Amino acid sequence: MNELDHYAVKYRRHLLESVVPFWLNHSLDPEYGGYFTCLDREGKVYDTRKYIWLQGRAVWMFSKLYNEVEPREEWLAAARSIIRFVRRHGRDAEGRYYFSLTREGLPSAFQRKPYAAVFVTLGLLEYAKAEGGLEYLREAEDLFERIREWIARPELLGRPRLAGQVPVSQMADVMVVSSMALELYAATGKACYKDVMRECIRGAMRHCAPEKRVLIENVSPDGGRLDSPEGRLVCPGHSCEVSWFLLRMLDHHPDPAIERTVLDAIEGALEFGWDGEHEGLYHFMDIDGRPPLPLEWSMKLWWPHTEAIHALVLAYLRTREDRFLRWLERVDSYSFRRFADPDFGEWFGYCDREGRVTHNAKGNSYKGFFHVPRFLLLSAEAIERSWR
Amino acid sequence: MNELDHYAVKYRRHLLESVVPFWLNHSLDPEYGGYFTCLDREGKVYDTRKYIWLQGRAVWMFSKLYNEVEPREEWLAAARSIIRFVRRHGRDAEGRYYFSLTREGLPSAFQRKPYAAVFVTLGLLEYAKAEGGLEYLREAEDLFERIREWIARPELLGRPRLAGQVPVSQMADVMVVSSMALELYAATGKACYKDVMRECIRGAMRHCAPEKRVLIENVSPDGGRLDSPEGRLVCPGHSCEVSWFLLRMLDHHPDPAIERTVLDAIEGALEFGWDGEHEGLYHFMDIDGRPPLPLEWSMKLWWPHTEAIHALVLAYLRTREDRFLRWLERVDSYSFRRFADPDFGEWFGYCDREGRVTHNAKGNSYKGFFHVPRFLLLSAEAIERSWR
Repeated sequence: MNELDHYAVKYRRHLLESVVPFWLNHSLDPEYGGYFTCLDREGKVYDTRKYIWLQGRAVWMFSKLYNEVEPREEWLAAARSIIRFVRRHGRDAEGRYYFSLTREGLPSAFQRKPYAAVFVTLGLLEYAKAEGGLEYLREAEDLFERIREWIARPELLGRPRLAGQVPVSQMADVMVVSSMALELYAATGKACYKDVMRECIRGAMRHCAPEKRVLIENVSPDGGRLDSPEGRLVCPGHSCEVSWFLLRMLDHHPDPAIERTVLDAIEGALEFGWDGEHEGLYHFMDIDGRPPLPLEWSMKLWWPHTEAIHALVLAYLRTREDRFLRWLERVDSYSFRRFADPDFGEWFGYCDREGRVTHNAKGNSYKGFFHVPRFLLLSAEAIERSWR
Repeated sequence: MNELDHYAVKYRRHLLESVVPFWLNHSLDPEYGGYFTCLDREGKVYDTRKYIWLQGRAVWMFSKLYNEVEPREEWLAAARSIIRFVRRHGRDAEGRYYFSLTREGLPSAFQRKPYAAVFVTLGLLEYAKAEGGLEYLREAEDLFERIREWIARPELLGRPRLAGQVPVSQMADVMVVSSMALELYAATGKACYKDVMRECIRGAMRHCAPEKRVLIENVSPDGGRLDSPEGRLVCPGHSCEVSWFLLRMLDHHPDPAIERTVLDAIEGALEFGWDGEHEGLYHFMDIDGRPPLPLEWSMKLWWPHTEAIHALVLAYLRTREDRFLRWLERVDSYSFRRFADPDFGEWFGYCDREGRVTHNAKGNSYKGFFHVPRFLLLSAEAIERSWR
């Protein structure tokens, strides 16, 4: 038993009493399958489109609940309804995933990015465990290979190669490959996925900016700094998210020096990204203090906070260092005060710099059944594992 | 002489003392041609890429100054440097314009939209007047035809047609066609461009939402309402901008009933879009009060305010109605207090809802030498014309 016990209790209760019921009660589409993510504060649908990033993520999350909390039939049924909808309607003739579909399943938008496929892959992997289908696992392995190709050759997704483009390593790509490799290795035990993790650890380390102890979003493929707003961009929440994936990968490839760097990057992201005046994590920052291009840079979004909390839980359990405990108290307290909605459940997603809710919706095209339940479940589980 | 006289004096002085010098002193690239738009508060470059929307707009603006304020050689030279850079480097082999180039002129991004070409067309038209080149006028006429085709067939720009896409009339398209038709008609006197204006007036009227007296961004091609966040989206500043283009087109196609609707839409946009608590125009709103998707919906951006001011100047000069004068005082006062920077010149572009500057830059990939000088010049000129 330790200082984090009350967090485990709180997170598991919040997950099962406030978060899961909100989505189960309001989001599923019994008529066409899949689920709605554009829900307002009370859970009313304000846009019936189905966004594939979020469909895939919900398959993962509902399956995870079924696999790790308890085998409730309604959770498996939700995952099944969504994965069927996605597999029936989500792809074009060349197997590329759309960004969004109409309620009925007709394609309505295509994004020239691999991320829709990434989240379908993760969904397939967790669903395969729940339903026991080898075909889902095979499909996920195939999709993983295709995603690696799409990342290497974005022209396959319709993004032209242009002579003035600077070669770049995007941290988002390193992270999604890490997340898939971790789960593919857990599902198959194949050495090739363990090798991919090693590659990802090396790749992520190239994003380290030692002067601020943060990971920066875009660097040149050899880790050099890019002299542009993208090359100076830091997303403290993303830095925390990548860090906790790194900690998990380091369990497979132990390396004390890298582990120290990663732990420091969690603290560094919080020290650099925390708003000393109004609390909360800035969404984006320029590492040199130059003007950031994104309009929302100073807003406080829910997901950087969920990722920071989970990173801090893992960091504290590993080190028992006070610095992580203090930050955890601070981020947890801010997040539940600002984002949680005791009246209707689930979290708001967006506050202004001062912490006032700017969007009273519970979901949209990028917020669905994922970050909040994931951090609650994974954090509670990590704390509980430490009791054994 | 009338109640607006002091605005004419103020705007012309601000244009020539605060705005034009900022850009002339800091933005031009004598080495490669073109101009930088990513300038920080003091004018230092923080991103050397050249964004074609803004290159075309600056050609228009520098040429306009040369044509209508006085024939200063430095203004013509600036326009010339930028149009040469754009014509040399801005297009792909099929004549489609890139979104951005490196400092040297290599393509770095392509947007699947026609707007880069739109602003180049406007630049060519005004530059043709300054330099007297028939070739620029011909090029603009050709480009106009291609843009009309790209709007009708977006697959030519790489945007796939998908079965679940809803047919939509975008107000942005109506507006850019209006802006080009007005200038093409002025330059050539050809009846076909006057016909396009009539089409645009009809097209814009389909965007009217009579219950709030605003123009909505996206409707079905016959003017029906779309049941989606896009179909409920209102940008009060855009509503004002389209309205002042409509007033100018109505000079060519007088219609008292439509004129009354347009004038009411200016007042309607301000009544609906003005933040009663903190002042300023919201950037985006949902006409039914549902959650707007854009993260920046409650921010206060500079350009909706410049467009509102110019619309109000034109509306007041036409009607002498007090309602427009009172709104003009309010929007002008807010804008100069929040956005103008007496220390270094030009305007900031972005404030949070409370009116605090969130980005201390003077330009970026969407803000350059355009909205501020355009509203200042066109408003001063309109007021001065009323003296004659």
